[in-house]
Amino acid sequence: MAAVVLLAWRLPAGADDRPHAAPLLQDARSNFQSITADVAAQQKNLGTPVVELGRKLFFDPRISADGVWSCMLCHQPSLYGTDAHPKSRGVFDKFLPRNAPTVLNSALQFRQHWDGGRESVEEQAKLAPLGGGFGNANDAQAVDRLKAVPGYADLFEAAFPDDKDPVTTTNWAAAIGAYEHTLLTPSRFDDFLDGKTDALTPSEQAGLRKFIDIGCVNCHDGRGLGGDSFEKFGAVSDYWNATHSDPIDLGRFNITKADADRYVFKVPPLRNVEKTAPYFHDGSVEKLPDAARIMAKVQLGKDLAPRDVDDIVSFLNSLTGEIPANFAQAPVLPSGQFHEKP
Amino acid sequence: MAAVVLLAWRLPAGADDRPHAAPLLQDARSNFQSITADVAAQQKNLGTPVVELGRKLFFDPRISADGVWSCMLCHQPSLYGTDAHPKSRGVFDKFLPRNAPTVLNSALQFRQHWDGGRESVEEQAKLAPLGGGFGNANDAQAVDRLKAVPGYADLFEAAFPDDKDPVTTTNWAAAIGAYEHTLLTPSRFDDFLDGKTDALTPSEQAGLRKFIDIGCVNCHDGRGLGGDSFEKFGAVSDYWNATHSDPIDLGRFNITKADADRYVFKVPPLRNVEKTAPYFHDGSVEKLPDAARIMAKVQLGKDLAPRDVDDIVSFLNSLTGEIPANFAQAPVLPSGQFHEKP
Repeated sequence: MAAVVLLAWRLPAGADDRPHAAPLLQDARSNFQSITADVAAQQKNLGTPVVELGRKLFFDPRISADGVWSCMLCHQPSLYGTDAHPKSRGVFDKFLPRNAPTVLNSALQFRQHWDGGRESVEEQAKLAPLGGGFGNANDAQAVDRLKAVPGYADLFEAAFPDDKDPVTTTNWAAAIGAYEHTLLTPSRFDDFLDGKTDALTPSEQAGLRKFIDIGCVNCHDGRGLGGDSFEKFGAVSDYWNATHSDPIDLGRFNITKADADRYVFKVPPLRNVEKTAPYFHDGSVEKLPDAARIMAKVQLGKDLAPRDVDDIVSFLNSLTGEIPANFAQAPVLPSGQFHEKP
Repeated sequence: MAAVVLLAWRLPAGADDRPHAAPLLQDARSNFQSITADVAAQQKNLGTPVVELGRKLFFDPRISADGVWSCMLCHQPSLYGTDAHPKSRGVFDKFLPRNAPTVLNSALQFRQHWDGGRESVEEQAKLAPLGGGFGNANDAQAVDRLKAVPGYADLFEAAFPDDKDPVTTTNWAAAIGAYEHTLLTPSRFDDFLDGKTDALTPSEQAGLRKFIDIGCVNCHDGRGLGGDSFEKFGAVSDYWNATHSDPIDLGRFNITKADADRYVFKVPPLRNVEKTAPYFHDGSVEKLPDAARIMAKVQLGKDLAPRDVDDIVSFLNSLTGEIPANFAQAPVLPSGQFHEKP
């Protein structure tokens, strides 16, 4: 009798040919982690002075050299935290070298930037004002631009009450980092991992099974389904033959100059991947099914059947969450005009 | 006895030197109109397919030639529908000739643009894709960019069900116009006009009294406190001596070539003026008190005392409303990458 009950539990009615949810859940849990606990942990930070300051700074264009670019411009709420460009444009409308990844869930990663060149979201934010996105000559210039907006002095003081002179790029970075830690998008896949096995459709479950069995999970695992390791793009065959990338990006080699790091990139996390086209470090591939097919080929040496691609993409779509309210909702910024030459 | 009651009603306790609210309300009502009814009339349009399409289009950068500029970029929710620039930048980061006015309440105006060169928000939106903000060569190119985002076809069809080929710049403009008609920001001044006389503080009431008596109201009247007439900027003395404008903008003369239109501009509406620095057609003046002082001088030939400026600015601050929810909240746009050469 016990065996019959167990069998019935494993085979829900009308789902004969879909993978068995309980073993699938078990396999999934051994590879992925739900972010339900992370979301709960961030609840206490929502609305705090430091997070709200970071939210304002994220949206404010007045710290960039032309007063147009802000964190938000490459990470737009309307576009799921991306800019929909193959390669982003930065201040003065100049091209940047790589694709802007979504800011959503980015703080879950072990490093930032495609080549892992930033240790954390805080370090990314700390150096951003001096990069191609903002174009400040140095920290002092960035701070001058911040101080030119009168309302920020009080907001920094409220967020960093122990600092004598709180308007610094270190605090700007800490605030933006704290804000970005709140930008989490739980999805139906988290419900599944939390035990609600019917949160995924049969096709999504079939895709998850294949995602695991084919080997995508070797790199795309953990809380972010990626974002926790470096891998060579093109482990089996040169990536640029599949992506038609031009120029060919050497990846992490540019930082370390180690031969082993040639074409090595941080594995991108896959949450919201449905909404963050185009794909790869240079946005060279527009459609998600193509990206999935290319990954199987150049990383695993496998040719996916159309049905496999459909199922895997179906699973990937279950990773789409809702835009967090404190990202979708624009903060009201302190008043004050942008000064051309602060 | 009746006279005593009347006196008590006219002179609230502790407000001996503030203007009497009832006569003030009467004077205000003869010059201004509350937008309470406009807000109520727009309720039925919120969330309709055409307004929601317009909202998406307003936020979408993919119709501009560089895929960065959108309506939203010069009219940011975080900045009360402005860009905080003296003069806006448009596509490819090139300067535009004038200051971007707030989009909030802009549909209440009798014409659009500083020189009245657009009849309506619909006409403004219809021609915007071809202007310096978006940089399309012609309507066909703008439509191509729209059609390159697959999700728009269905949204246009839902918004314009009677059209055979609904993806046109005419419909784009109709949708954005319909959206902009919903972007109204009722304020405490509307509460006052609606009869709640204590909605304005004594200083704000004093400022309103002066705003009327000094003559600001001659042009800044109606629902928008402006936006319903043309006037010569510098009716009494040349504006550029006060604003230090460079170059000197001929205003409406550029359109009509009529001498009477030299230095003539649409009177800007004053709702949310506290939040929309810098001021005037070229953003040549940063602070609101300075703008008020200059206006009294060059339009009315009057030197305002500091107390007058304080009171008038105090009144102007009562015109600040809340950012409408369907503006503050970013819409989720249809997925799809920007194509460099559509």
